[in-house]
Amino acid sequence: MRGAVLHAPGDIRVEERQDPTIERPSDVVIRLVATCVCGSDLWPYRGLEAINPPAPMGHEYVGVVEEVGDEVATIKAGQFVVGSFFASDNTCEICRAGYQSSCVHREPMGALGAQAERLRVPLADGTLVATPGMPTDDLVPSLLAASDVLGTGWFGAVAAEAGPGKTVVVVGDGAVGLLGVLAAKRLGAERIVAVSRHEPRQRLAREFGATDIVTERGAEGVARIKDLTGGLGAHSVIEAVGTQESMMQAIRSTRPGGHVGYVGVAHGVELPGEELFYSHVHLHGGPAPVRRFLPELIELICDREIDPGKVFDLTLPVDQAAEGYRAMDERRAIKTLLTL
Amino acid sequence: MRGAVLHAPGDIRVEERQDPTIERPSDVVIRLVATCVCGSDLWPYRGLEAINPPAPMGHEYVGVVEEVGDEVATIKAGQFVVGSFFASDNTCEICRAGYQSSCVHREPMGALGAQAERLRVPLADGTLVATPGMPTDDLVPSLLAASDVLGTGWFGAVAAEAGPGKTVVVVGDGAVGLLGVLAAKRLGAERIVAVSRHEPRQRLAREFGATDIVTERGAEGVARIKDLTGGLGAHSVIEAVGTQESMMQAIRSTRPGGHVGYVGVAHGVELPGEELFYSHVHLHGGPAPVRRFLPELIELICDREIDPGKVFDLTLPVDQAAEGYRAMDERRAIKTLLTL
Repeated sequence: MRGAVLHAPGDIRVEERQDPTIERPSDVVIRLVATCVCGSDLWPYRGLEAINPPAPMGHEYVGVVEEVGDEVATIKAGQFVVGSFFASDNTCEICRAGYQSSCVHREPMGALGAQAERLRVPLADGTLVATPGMPTDDLVPSLLAASDVLGTGWFGAVAAEAGPGKTVVVVGDGAVGLLGVLAAKRLGAERIVAVSRHEPRQRLAREFGATDIVTERGAEGVARIKDLTGGLGAHSVIEAVGTQESMMQAIRSTRPGGHVGYVGVAHGVELPGEELFYSHVHLHGGPAPVRRFLPELIELICDREIDPGKVFDLTLPVDQAAEGYRAMDERRAIKTLLTL
Repeated sequence: MRGAVLHAPGDIRVEERQDPTIERPSDVVIRLVATCVCGSDLWPYRGLEAINPPAPMGHEYVGVVEEVGDEVATIKAGQFVVGSFFASDNTCEICRAGYQSSCVHREPMGALGAQAERLRVPLADGTLVATPGMPTDDLVPSLLAASDVLGTGWFGAVAAEAGPGKTVVVVGDGAVGLLGVLAAKRLGAERIVAVSRHEPRQRLAREFGATDIVTERGAEGVARIKDLTGGLGAHSVIEAVGTQESMMQAIRSTRPGGHVGYVGVAHGVELPGEELFYSHVHLHGGPAPVRRFLPELIELICDREIDPGKVFDLTLPVDQAAEGYRAMDERRAIKTLLTL
């Protein structure tokens, strides 16, 4: 089959890879309908995160089940399914508490390479959620967004305790941040402030529910948030970047007793303990347990209540994955969908 | 009046200080019935926290109201009152959210020096809670504990979401940690693990409700907690020390999705962002909003439901404050009560 492989920083090639097969009886193999490039794929693409080349890439996927292992009970051949970036049993104590991305049997899907024609999905009964019937083509981008960026933005909003009466700030205007805006809106937030200096992203943020845009970063950005909140800071802040600057902007934009939901994959972040202590914020985040939210998100999408697929502003055949990476790296695209 | 003053690290003297008076119409002046030495007083006493000598010391107090400012509406002369280490208006948005120790008008009581015969209390209506009638002498130590260490341990347990069905670990066997055990027990925790290597403190921890004792620290301590929790870590961890080692032990002892409540005043702590991200823990803490809990704690004490005063294992007249500090510094005493 064809699949995207990272050979070195900046060097993505779509080449022949071995077809996946059932390796364990809890596996299924799916034929991908669509996949995409993640903001987190850019870390190794930019050489900022070590890889072991040649590395198959991709961890976002929707597709149709082709082969089913002997122990798989609920997932059936022919179903259209959505999964997320960790396979999880969905039965262990950690999964049952809603932290499937820390499942005691979790497996990172990124290692299997979802930017490809086919994908083996371990722990299929726990990992995958089937849609109600075969979705129409126009729903595919939104279902694909549920696989990671929507689920991650949603977790950020939940971790930040976005809700009625709250002012929510979103630091980061990538797909996750923009979908954090959408999630905050759906969760009933009163006021949603998107931090962005890019006009097309500001527009999408407003479309998803942002009521205010702040263009300043760092100390100036914090001062603007304080201005907007009677000097107190926001109730809820979603951090969707993962750098020292963005984390500190998020913490300092939050009022005492408020909540920071951080979902930007942390790179080189060190949090000063004394400042954190006196900030009185709640801090929660990490790799989103997307599986927790998938049933609800799929329902909202299939009922056309939300349209998160709008974050895809570039669509390419998978063979042009290299251009998809480049466009995101150069910020010409928010997010690239790859068709198969 | 007589009061304790820190002149240099290790040099506490009880000397004549100016009597406090009403400075603002929202003030009261109280005559102290008892005060005490806090673990956090040991930081400047040990020279580990800068002071501007001569510094009046103390921020824990119970007493009887003597003088009342013109604007004070609810607190009356003759009442027995309990306050905490921050004066707060108890009416601002931050106070109403339960974070009185970040009140927009807060004033640190430590600067006024509560280890003394009399004390001016700003924002008296917001800061002080009167007991139902004059308490008997045997209740005074427990009411004094409510002023800081009980309220702080309680906040740690609430921040760690201690409750029914939960395994709670308490890192730190000072008065705050021991009262964190008591709080976790009252909040219904199923299993309470005290981390302590000091036999008298272990005994008190068991008396307050600890079901298990772990003596190991650092990585070994974490491994013991994992052993006790099926490899997952505790649901709730109360951190009551404030060092890098204790914070990391707390974070690493917590399961994914679990809660760290940290109330040890942070000194030189730097939290690694990536480890925190992948830990999936909730982190919350800071200077305890003791005022939030005072009405409930006073009721529990006056109804003799709890006896937190047991943490005082040394009682001295205030004139011997220096010996009270020394005994705590050398860990000969858990906590020193000073009588007046």
